[in-house]
Amino acid sequence: MTQTERPGFDRSDRERAEATDSTRASTAAGGDVLMAIDLADAWSVLDAAERAQGFATLPRSEAEDFFLRLPTRGQAELLLTLPASERRSFARLLAPDDAADLIQHAPHEDRAGLLALLDSATMHEVTGLLTYAEDEAGGLMTPRYARLRPEMTVSEAISYLRRYANQHRDATYYAYVLDDAQHLLGTVSFRELFAANPEDRIADVMRGDPVAVQEDLDQEAVSRLFAAHHFLALPVVDAEHRMKGVVTIDDIVDVVREEATEDIHKIGGTEALDAPYLSIGFLRMTRKRAGWLSALFVGEMLTATAMGHYEHDLARAVVLALFIPLIISSGGNSGSQATTLVIRAMALHEVGLRDWWRVIRRELASGLVLGAILAVIGLVRILAWQAMFQSYGEHFFLIGLTVALSLIGVVTFGTLAGSMLPFLLRRLGFDPASASAPFVATLVDVTGLVIYFTVASVVLSGTLL
Amino acid sequence: MTQTERPGFDRSDRERAEATDSTRASTAAGGDVLMAIDLADAWSVLDAAERAQGFATLPRSEAEDFFLRLPTRGQAELLLTLPASERRSFARLLAPDDAADLIQHAPHEDRAGLLALLDSATMHEVTGLLTYAEDEAGGLMTPRYARLRPEMTVSEAISYLRRYANQHRDATYYAYVLDDAQHLLGTVSFRELFAANPEDRIADVMRGDPVAVQEDLDQEAVSRLFAAHHFLALPVVDAEHRMKGVVTIDDIVDVVREEATEDIHKIGGTEALDAPYLSIGFLRMTRKRAGWLSALFVGEMLTATAMGHYEHDLARAVVLALFIPLIISSGGNSGSQATTLVIRAMALHEVGLRDWWRVIRRELASGLVLGAILAVIGLVRILAWQAMFQSYGEHFFLIGLTVALSLIGVVTFGTLAGSMLPFLLRRLGFDPASASAPFVATLVDVTGLVIYFTVASVVLSGTLL
Repeated sequence: MTQTERPGFDRSDRERAEATDSTRASTAAGGDVLMAIDLADAWSVLDAAERAQGFATLPRSEAEDFFLRLPTRGQAELLLTLPASERRSFARLLAPDDAADLIQHAPHEDRAGLLALLDSATMHEVTGLLTYAEDEAGGLMTPRYARLRPEMTVSEAISYLRRYANQHRDATYYAYVLDDAQHLLGTVSFRELFAANPEDRIADVMRGDPVAVQEDLDQEAVSRLFAAHHFLALPVVDAEHRMKGVVTIDDIVDVVREEATEDIHKIGGTEALDAPYLSIGFLRMTRKRAGWLSALFVGEMLTATAMGHYEHDLARAVVLALFIPLIISSGGNSGSQATTLVIRAMALHEVGLRDWWRVIRRELASGLVLGAILAVIGLVRILAWQAMFQSYGEHFFLIGLTVALSLIGVVTFGTLAGSMLPFLLRRLGFDPASASAPFVATLVDVTGLVIYFTVASVVLSGTLL
Repeated sequence: MTQTERPGFDRSDRERAEATDSTRASTAAGGDVLMAIDLADAWSVLDAAERAQGFATLPRSEAEDFFLRLPTRGQAELLLTLPASERRSFARLLAPDDAADLIQHAPHEDRAGLLALLDSATMHEVTGLLTYAEDEAGGLMTPRYARLRPEMTVSEAISYLRRYANQHRDATYYAYVLDDAQHLLGTVSFRELFAANPEDRIADVMRGDPVAVQEDLDQEAVSRLFAAHHFLALPVVDAEHRMKGVVTIDDIVDVVREEATEDIHKIGGTEALDAPYLSIGFLRMTRKRAGWLSALFVGEMLTATAMGHYEHDLARAVVLALFIPLIISSGGNSGSQATTLVIRAMALHEVGLRDWWRVIRRELASGLVLGAILAVIGLVRILAWQAMFQSYGEHFFLIGLTVALSLIGVVTFGTLAGSMLPFLLRRLGFDPASASAPFVATLVDVTGLVIYFTVASVVLSGTLL
């Protein structure tokens, strides 16, 4: 990120509003802050040795801050380049969920070593978190949260939370009310405690039966809950409704971005990279791209087979070849539009499986209208070129008619295929985003050729063919 | 959303953890909750009259809850179908930023009427908010927040905040310290107040010089700040650093989803719909799709022109036509991959303008490797078909060589063009996402034909051509 790209960001102070309290005992002077910012700007173009060197020049409090702000993968890489003496103190700045993320992002051979840097309580928590998949609620949660008993009074709870707030730096603003067996009974926000009568019992001021997510719920579903209900934090429970931890909304922002990135990559016809473009290894990236590209290429070979069937028609009317790219690409573009709209609407839960009939009706109408628009443009183009350059011989009108009718057919087919493919994939249990635009384009290319030559054989029969 | 799609969601209680306190004085019985849930499930397939009817059957507290959970556009539509007597009481449930959103989403002719439903204090706040664009910090913020003076003691602040929390339902957990002229001096979290000594002055416990965003900062930049720093809320200030309001992270989750949707739509080759797929009007949707589709079609007409130049070559060697779809689509697919990866990396600020040279080197290498892979597959296919069916005549090897060399050229060109187009658009001040995959495909189609026929004229010169 460069300075000019963040016009409204007050650069004189980039301190986190939360979670790094103890690391900033000494307020950084302007010069130091600028150094950390320069390093952040240059970070992506530095190699590992330059990064370690730049990092070593930062004053301690700036270095801690800088470390905490790096993305997880960057933290893991940096930590491994630090002298052994410093690793431990930086690793211990991390909250347990962040430490677990970092260990999951590190190469296999370094994981045990990184885990050993933590203090024993955190190591225990992190080991528990590492049993969850990264993309489920359990993998997102922190195991640290404020616990209250239902029989406490509000004033007892406040004095307990006061001590808790002094010792912990996690940013949640709810306390969770548990019974002896760790079952979740209710929640109470710090703000509600402010507002309550000090003699009231927690059981009377808490919200009972709170919304909670199961520990194995997929992170995409968790993020939809946050988006729909504007929660700041959600408790995570196991199958017996025992409290396991808390997912906070700041982690959800990352999840929403990650999920969108995955979908965008798939729509673009590549496997999700799962890493920033510039930091992923060349071979790994090429492999992720080559797989889909080769699959599409093999599918596209059907066009050569289809064209083979029409080779005699083509030999008699070479003029037909001129419009092949135009026709198949129009089908591909309209299919790409339709599939993208439907995939995104499904991801946002605006469209579900049962809506397929409404979608098909809409897309049939859309396809006919869009096809007719392109048909008119195409016909005008052919008539104009004929008038100006006599490009298409005596049967120019029949050729124009062939192109126009084919466009209506191809665009309608592309639109329908593009919109229905995500439904089919989802019905079969696949990710609809895999119905990537290039995949639809390939499907439509083959069909487009068949439509074009079929229309041609009807319209041009007795003249050119 | 259907029941099975939310396995971990505890359906016995879907109450918001925040922000609807007063609306739920009567805890809903199980049956009522299920009714609201049934209505939510059926909502997208109901027409306006059915929605109003279903909504009228809900008990008051459920109805209020249901109303607050609808997306903004749904709230506006529902509000307009309610009897005049009920409109006012539902409209007054909305926080000022949500009311402003609702009015911005309503048809022009209804706006004044909706504004008049609010009480005069809120109406004043909403009118202020309506002067901001929807997609800048000012349009996201709420003008309600807890204010403190630097000379207050912690215990004075707590008793003030206790009263404030009782009167207001907004969900922020920071108080903002302002001077007489409303300049932002610092922030203090409710939790920090818990932990502080009651006799301390606010000036001594607050965090000075807090990060703040300018009121006209773009919402995408605001969301990046939240993602990078894990803030829960950010103050919004004007050019003189006077406090205007607060943006909270729950609104940012919506922004991140919206921005991703816009980018995905553009990548799919359509204008961003700015509305859910099933609720946008047919004509509006078709218009948004027809524009791009026609533009791409007009661009694609260049392929007919290019093909016209090679009509004589084609007439002599019709076999060349067989591979045209295969070759141009491979260029399109590789360009689509490259452009999608670069656009997303730019949106996430992983790649900036100055990285163009690193990207070009990566993509040149990628393009050559991917092109070579496809070339081998293509050559094997042609040799195999020749061996099995004698499809391609005596010069089959030269034809295979033509296709293979063209694939390397076309894929390399597609990859380079796809990766550089976003840089070019951004440099010119456009949104890189407009370099949608279909646009790249069209560009590459024309160039691909030129590459193919040029390679053919060299390789096949003296034999077929």
